[in-house]
Amino acid sequence: MRNIKLIIAYEGSKYLGWQKTSMGPNIEGVLESALKQLLQEEVPIQACSRTDAGVHAQGQVVNFLTRSAIPLKGLGNGLNALLPKEIRVLSLEEMPLSFHPTLDALSKTYHYHVCTGPIQMPFVRHLSWHTPYLLDLVAMREAAQCLLGRHDFKALCNYRKGLRYEDYVREVLRLEITPLPDRRLRFEIEGSSFLYKMVRNIVGTLVYVGRGKLTVADVPLILTGKQRSAAGITAPSHGLTLAHIRYKIMKT
Amino acid sequence: MRNIKLIIAYEGSKYLGWQKTSMGPNIEGVLESALKQLLQEEVPIQACSRTDAGVHAQGQVVNFLTRSAIPLKGLGNGLNALLPKEIRVLSLEEMPLSFHPTLDALSKTYHYHVCTGPIQMPFVRHLSWHTPYLLDLVAMREAAQCLLGRHDFKALCNYRKGLRYEDYVREVLRLEITPLPDRRLRFEIEGSSFLYKMVRNIVGTLVYVGRGKLTVADVPLILTGKQRSAAGITAPSHGLTLAHIRYKIMKT
Repeated sequence: MRNIKLIIAYEGSKYLGWQKTSMGPNIEGVLESALKQLLQEEVPIQACSRTDAGVHAQGQVVNFLTRSAIPLKGLGNGLNALLPKEIRVLSLEEMPLSFHPTLDALSKTYHYHVCTGPIQMPFVRHLSWHTPYLLDLVAMREAAQCLLGRHDFKALCNYRKGLRYEDYVREVLRLEITPLPDRRLRFEIEGSSFLYKMVRNIVGTLVYVGRGKLTVADVPLILTGKQRSAAGITAPSHGLTLAHIRYKIMKT
Repeated sequence: MRNIKLIIAYEGSKYLGWQKTSMGPNIEGVLESALKQLLQEEVPIQACSRTDAGVHAQGQVVNFLTRSAIPLKGLGNGLNALLPKEIRVLSLEEMPLSFHPTLDALSKTYHYHVCTGPIQMPFVRHLSWHTPYLLDLVAMREAAQCLLGRHDFKALCNYRKGLRYEDYVREVLRLEITPLPDRRLRFEIEGSSFLYKMVRNIVGTLVYVGRGKLTVADVPLILTGKQRSAAGITAPSHGLTLAHIRYKIMKT
């Protein structure tokens, strides 16, 4: 049996997210069909992050088990030939049987793009949130400092039916905001794990600080208050990209 | 009567090009409909460049005449509210009645993007030509030097029914090739005017030089030979963007 790890990229605009659903197109279903066609067997796949509808990925990590002897190169070329161009296999690696894409992940990094100019260029309309306001970058960076480290992030977690967490304590390892050309900003957020819509709620809250709708001093109070309604809005899905997942080095 | 100049951007993937046609969606038709709805009158528009199907624009220049008194700001906001998000009005300016977007243009600059890596990231799939070969940048830059200045470009002009040129002499003012992240390249080509598919034929020919299918020494011979078949292929439309049009400064 082989345990194969794939790093994949996708533009999620046309998809209902990672997870299989009969409601419409989803990345997991498309990838499983392509694998089935190639391997002539059903192989369930596991992904590190079940990205939501409209969310993109540059470095999603998935794995599957197979008895097939197809070399990795042929598998990658075959998959990219079968997959639509908005989903690409970037690399393949054979892992120890014990490898699990979620359990072995040390951290995940998400990027969130915001366009603050009065008009958003058409080329980035599926990849960034158009929020045409002057944002105070210094205030947003100060507020980001308050979110770094271990905190109870209940105020930045959305409710979802059937989803229960044992606790809401998570650790944000890195939170950087970088200005890009055309009045765009990139938020880079790295954490060991995230609550439901936590990244988009962090961005929505920081944008509220940038607009002056919240102050830097509000941010620690929002965390300790644990009330979702006190924080900023959930930034829309299309600005979010799963950028990179970090693993410990494993020996085959 | 007012003569209004617009600078517009569009992602042309879903369109059959600039020009009005009953065959399917086109930028000119969509823009004219929005203007008609806003101004309550039919206003024919003129564009500097009739971009082909799939071609994009960052700085297309168009004009129209109107008796409407709507201020420019209201016109811009109204148009952007009516237009689909893949077409944006970037700026508006009131011009002398004599202004004509084609006749008054001093030069046009096109950008062409190429992705040379084995896998093209999904995010640029509509914006760059995936040609997964190692390209010799030094050879391509030397060949580009041979195309600079005034030449007969018949060998780099495609045949089109009903289209006749008095002569094929054109002037290339600038031709630069810049490496970008992710093994992409940007070709920047500025000229006073271009023949049919000349920019895409220049790129296709330079890519052939980069791949070693043509040599630098072939390029001047291709120009003097005037045979289209001796040059490289026509690079596909989706890598091409009309970037900028330069005008002389006019007093209102």
